[in-house]
This record gives sequence, C-alpha cells and structure tokens, in this order.
Amino acid sequence: MRILKSIKEVREQIKLWKRDGLTVGLVPTMGYLHEGHESLIKRAAKENDKVVVSIFVNPMQFGPAEDLDNYPRDLDGDSCICEGAGADLIFNPDAKEMYFNDFSTFVDMNGLTQGLCGKSRPVHFRGVCTVVLKLFNIAPANRAYFGEKDAQQLAIIKRMVRDLNIDIEIIGCPTVRESDGLAKSSRNFYLSQEERKAANILNKSLELAKIKLCSGEKSAKAIRDIIIENIKKEPLAKVDYVEVVDSKSMERIEKIDRSILVAIAVNIGKARLIDNFTFEV
Amino acid sequence: MRILKSIKEVREQIKLWKRDGLTVGLVPTMGYLHEGHESLIKRAAKENDKVVVSIFVNPMQFGPAEDLDNYPRDLDGDSCICEGAGADLIFNPDAKEMYFNDFSTFVDMNGLTQGLCGKSRPVHFRGVCTVVLKLFNIAPANRAYFGEKDAQQLAIIKRMVRDLNIDIEIIGCPTVRESDGLAKSSRNFYLSQEERKAANILNKSLELAKIKLCSGEKSAKAIRDIIIENIKKEPLAKVDYVEVVDSKSMERIEKIDRSILVAIAVNIGKARLIDNFTFEV
Repeated sequence: MRILKSIKEVREQIKLWKRDGLTVGLVPTMGYLHEGHESLIKRAAKENDKVVVSIFVNPMQFGPAEDLDNYPRDLDGDSCICEGAGADLIFNPDAKEMYFNDFSTFVDMNGLTQGLCGKSRPVHFRGVCTVVLKLFNIAPANRAYFGEKDAQQLAIIKRMVRDLNIDIEIIGCPTVRESDGLAKSSRNFYLSQEERKAANILNKSLELAKIKLCSGEKSAKAIRDIIIENIKKEPLAKVDYVEVVDSKSMERIEKIDRSILVAIAVNIGKARLIDNFTFEV
Repeated sequence: MRILKSIKEVREQIKLWKRDGLTVGLVPTMGYLHEGHESLIKRAAKENDKVVVSIFVNPMQFGPAEDLDNYPRDLDGDSCICEGAGADLIFNPDAKEMYFNDFSTFVDMNGLTQGLCGKSRPVHFRGVCTVVLKLFNIAPANRAYFGEKDAQQLAIIKRMVRDLNIDIEIIGCPTVRESDGLAKSSRNFYLSQEERKAANILNKSLELAKIKLCSGEKSAKAIRDIIIENIKKEPLAKVDYVEVVDSKSMERIEKIDRSILVAIAVNIGKARLIDNFTFEV
C-alpha cells in the first residue's frame, strides 16, 4: 500500500490503473478511522480492483468555533486499518496541497443543505461538497463510498453528483455500531467514560421511535416528542435537533406517508454526535 | 459529424474515443456561431484528435432582466460552421436535459467574479461556472477552448479548474474582429445598421488607450478617462464599465506596474457589448 501526499502522483497512479482497465473505489475520510470506515474500505475492495482512501481533515468544512484544531489524528493507526481492509493507496495531502492561498471556488447547494446539520453548521456542507468534488477530480474513481451515519451528507453528495453530472457511483453503507448500539464515530474519542455511557441515549431514543413507527404512528411530531422526551432523561445530553424529514429532499414533514429519515444531533460534553435511521412506509 | 442531445450518448461517445487513445477538445458555446467560435473549433481540431462543440443557451447565466428569450439561435447555420471547422460532435441538449426541476447545486467564486461584468450581472458567473463544470463532466476533454474576448470568464474558468483540480487544459484564443475592428459577438446581431457603426467606438477607444500605454502612461485613471471621454463622443453608446485590472486577480489597480487587462462594457441599443486587451509592462 502506498501513501501519497501529492495530487499529481495520485492522479498519475489512477491513470495507470485505468489504462490497465482496472476499476477504482474511493473512500473519502478525515482519518482517525474506526470500524465504520473499515466497512467502507472492505466494501470498496470487494467491488473494485483498486481502493483509494483519502485522509484529509478538511478545514473548509469546520466553522470558526468548531473542533478543527482538536480533531483527532493518527496516520499510523489509519494506515494499519487501511492496509488490513484492502486499500491500495492512501491520499494524505497537506492543507496547502489542497487549498492555494487565493483559493476562491466553492460548491454550494440550496434546499438539502439548509436543515438538520446545516442549521447549526452553516458553512459545513459547502466545505464538504467542495472537498468531495476536488477528491473526485483528483482520484477519478468508478465508485465512492460514504457512511449512512452521515445521512444528510450522503443525500447532498448524491444530489451534487446528479446535478453536476459527475461520472461516479455513490454508495451508501450501513452505520456500524458499538455493542451497546452507539454509532461509531471519530468524535466518540472526545467522550469521558461517563459521557460515553450517556451517549447511548442517541440510539436508544431512536429505537423507541422506530418501535412507535412500526406500530403505525403517522405523526412526525409524536415521533419527535418521543425522542426529545427520552433524551431529556439524560442530564449530560443537550439536543441540537431532532427531525423527521423526507429521505430524499431532507424537507421537514408532518405526516409520515413516504420514505422518511429520522435524524438527531446531540451535544454530550465536547462531542456533537449524530445518528439516524430511515423508515419506509 | 454527429449531433447529440443526450448526456448519456455524449459520454459514451467520448469514452469510446478515449478507449482508443484519442485526445478530445471541447468548445463550449451558446450557439449562433461566428468566426470567433470558428477559430476556437479550428484550433481545437488542430490540437486534438476529436472535437466536441457544445451549443447550449444556458438559462442559469442570464439574469431575470436579460436577453435569454431573445438570444439568437440557428442550429442549421451552427452545424454548417462546426462541420466546416472540423468538429466531430455537437452536443445540443435541452434545458431539461441539463437541469432537473429540483436542480440545486452551483459553483460559486469569490473575488474574480465580483468586478467588471460580475457587477452588472450578479448571477452570471455562477451560471457560467456551473454549466462549464457540467460540460467538463459530461464531455471530459483533454483541452477546452475559450475566447479572450470574454477575458473575465476565461480567468474565472482557469481559476475554477485550478481550485477544483479539474483535469483539463484551458486554452484562451485571440478575439476575432470585423474588418473595422469590432469584436465578433453573437450579440452584434441585435444592432441596427446605425448602432453597428456606433459599436465601433469600443475598439477605437481601446486603441487610443493602447497607444497611451505604449507611450509610457502609468496611471490607470488616465487610461480609464481617455476611454470614457472617447465613448462619450458616440451618442448611441452608454458605458457600463471601463476598468483597468490586474490580469490574473481581476482586481482594480491604480498604477500600471504589472500585466493588466483593460476591459470595457458598453450598451448600444439592445446590445451589451464587451471588449478588452491585455498589456504587459
């Protein structure tokens, strides 16, 4: 497995692979990899001849008050996971390789980006779209893999690919969870032992909502209320949002009469954690 | 020469060419082709094995009060010019092939897009960047050709390609002019006989400025004044802007101590005409 820092070298390597008729899978990450990322890499390795994992903590998708400087990093550990999961190449650029001083272009989106995480993180999805488009251009893969834990991000990237006619297949992969149900996330690293236990409230509350939906509940408000009430029981947890939205448009709905996404964001200690599930009527 | 309306077919054709190791040149246009476009197509044919000309009047780059509905169209004439100049394929999509009803993604840029034409056409360059990126993705060429008449557009597209790591070479080609010096433009079509004569004031005024620069003038204001004063002599002409800017950043400058662009936009009748020249110190 190679680790490359320059755009030029990555591009050349992928051109060589493509010249040989090989397919390429891309797994964009911010590093500090966990079993969630690992599952993406394994899936990519299964479906493609070659796998590129990008590891880049993208400054553009962090707001000024967010955790860019403290975001956990561990390239050695990441390399180990990548190699074990079947990656052929890690692209690990510096920020200055990705962004010139006078960098001035960005990809923006109406609608999909404005609710859910877009509300409390107003520049986040602009940063995500821009860097993901850059990665698609640097490492032109046949398929790219993203986790369903970041459901809004996945919907946004699919929309960007459709709208901008990017020739790549976007594949969403199921959320990987700890044994008690907590969604795996690099940000779980921020949690103290006590907070880690409290964090379980996210998936437990979603489970309650799922049961209610399966029993035929049609009111989005009732679903939201169940979740909010349950999270309130956990003193360390502060709700950022609890939303029931159309699973494609990410628009808030009142009546559950289509495919929906139930998505939540909760602050616990220094960590802002998200989780979600989709439900088909 | 083929004329294709679907994105899928264009993409397949280009993949076949690339599989055979052929190079592809792309000439994005809004149709109603003139000798300026013809020179781009000929250059593309000289430098590439295959040439794609896109003909698409892009709604997204027109403001609400602009000339989208009246923009001249002539696919038969255009086909004739394309074939004669060495094009292999015309991509001529409908608006609905390019933009879904819920289209919501766009490429935007700070800095470069804000002065000059960006001032009087605030959504224009967002539309240009977005459609050009789409065209690059639909018809992934080795090289794309743009006229230097649209100097700001050319600088913006070069910046977008750099910032978003698009794997394409952007080639600017000299402005083609009528025998009296008027820059060729599809919008010259709007001019009455009298206005056509008046339109000559653009290049004549730029010529005066060029002479002044060659004689050593270092004040941008003096250059602007010469142009504005001269345009005022033509009663049918209304200045939109006269600017002296850094030729890369498009930022207004006061002292002429680097490579500059002198750019003007003038309304004559229903036509908004632009012209420019670059000058190296």
